Amino acid sequence: MQILLTNDDGYRSPGLAALIEIMKPYGHLTVVAPEEMQSGMSSAITTKIPVRLRKITSEKGMDVYACSGTPVDCVKLAMSCVLPQKPDLLVSGINHGINASSAVIYSGTLGAAVEGTLYGVPSIGFSLADFTPDADFNGCKIYGTKIINQALAHPFAPHVFLNVNFPALPAKEIKGVRLARQHRGAWIEEFVKRTDPHGFDYYWLTGQFVNHEPGALDADENLVNAGYISIVPHHLDMTDYPELQRLQKEWTF
Amino acid sequence: MQILLTNDDGYRSPGLAALIEIMKPYGHLTVVAPEEMQSGMSSAITTKIPVRLRKITSEKGMDVYACSGTPVDCVKLAMSCVLPQKPDLLVSGINHGINASSAVIYSGTLGAAVEGTLYGVPSIGFSLADFTPDADFNGCKIYGTKIINQALAHPFAPHVFLNVNFPALPAKEIKGVRLARQHRGAWIEEFVKRTDPHGFDYYWLTGQFVNHEPGALDADENLVNAGYISIVPHHLDMTDYPELQRLQKEWTF
Repeated sequence: MQILLTNDDGYRSPGLAALIEIMKPYGHLTVVAPEEMQSGMSSAITTKIPVRLRKITSEKGMDVYACSGTPVDCVKLAMSCVLPQKPDLLVSGINHGINASSAVIYSGTLGAAVEGTLYGVPSIGFSLADFTPDADFNGCKIYGTKIINQALAHPFAPHVFLNVNFPALPAKEIKGVRLARQHRGAWIEEFVKRTDPHGFDYYWLTGQFVNHEPGALDADENLVNAGYISIVPHHLDMTDYPELQRLQKEWTF
Repeated sequence: MQILLTNDDGYRSPGLAALIEIMKPYGHLTVVAPEEMQSGMSSAITTKIPVRLRKITSEKGMDVYACSGTPVDCVKLAMSCVLPQKPDLLVSGINHGINASSAVIYSGTLGAAVEGTLYGVPSIGFSLADFTPDADFNGCKIYGTKIINQALAHPFAPHVFLNVNFPALPAKEIKGVRLARQHRGAWIEEFVKRTDPHGFDYYWLTGQFVNHEPGALDADENLVNAGYISIVPHHLDMTDYPELQRLQKEWTF
């Protein structure tokens, strides 16, 4: 198998090293990952300036490149200028931090998985609910392999990508794996004002997660917080069909 | 009404000026738009550096601010630090360029509409299928008003935002308005390699749109190309429920 790996934390991140360990047994790896941290870049693309590509290593079974652009730039550049043909699988991550609920909207890790899906490549995003640099990726390694094995044995639909979130727990404390739906929630009251030494205001993005369905145990955010690994199949058609039908009847021009 | 306006082309763009013209009769306008062009920024947020906010003008019925961040930063900053209360309506645009089909994934204009929806504010994105700086916004003004009137008379669901695309036609040549679904298509073969004067390679994002359903006349991309205004109701839950049910049966751990 030809496998494309990327992430949004940069090519030197421990999460990517863990992902490489998981994926090496499955085939040839091509890593095209950002030079620097690109968290919160969503599906952003670089249009105003050109991007650079730098070969980091080439060893048996793996080539590693760093790209100056966003995670989506990494995927596009891999597809158009690095890989000889479309890969069989794309895996993005392992992200340092949870990407459940509406985090899927802001996540660069999942932006890369969206992009793989647009290219018709089966795509999976892996995230660990632990921001710390010395996060424990052992649970991800054990269960990540199980998840890849399931995906190869029972492929998911071509219009879908998988959003996998691991709880911040030692492997033996993980309660299990659940196929789930996207949780409803949002971040609010997010910018805080400060004043610089010259007397001018500036604003830092912070954020407070508001859980719109604290009781739901079939949705990813709560499942991960309860110690489960969540897997959400996401598609790219965001049309709300019931609302489309309703508005078609009500609106007149 | 309290109305929040933003865009991704920057606070000086002619598309925003046209949007202000459309929206002024409806209430008090607060404009928080990027300092510079932020096309293709999707739902990206600024996390590594702080953002700045600059008051541009304050006149009867309208306050205008420029923000150094992305379109989503503009919305978050407006909500948390500019507006005294949640606005009644958010309108983003008018974007210089079509945002139909999978453009919704990369668009900063629509990233702002997604963000408004997360805050529980009825949100609409307007885009004109014309990239040129001297694009004709007259059709947008006439039909934009009709669309706002419909949205006020028959409100769309709170979990939905509207993606409106106008064809690049004089008002009298526009064939009509169609409520539609998101078109299936993608951009491929997108980076081109060049060599700089120092002998190093660099890559420009270009792109070729591949229309996956050239015959469909109920989907936004083709409708706009055929001279219609398309309105797609989008929601934020990207879960593929049939695929979720299928995988729940097939996958075992």
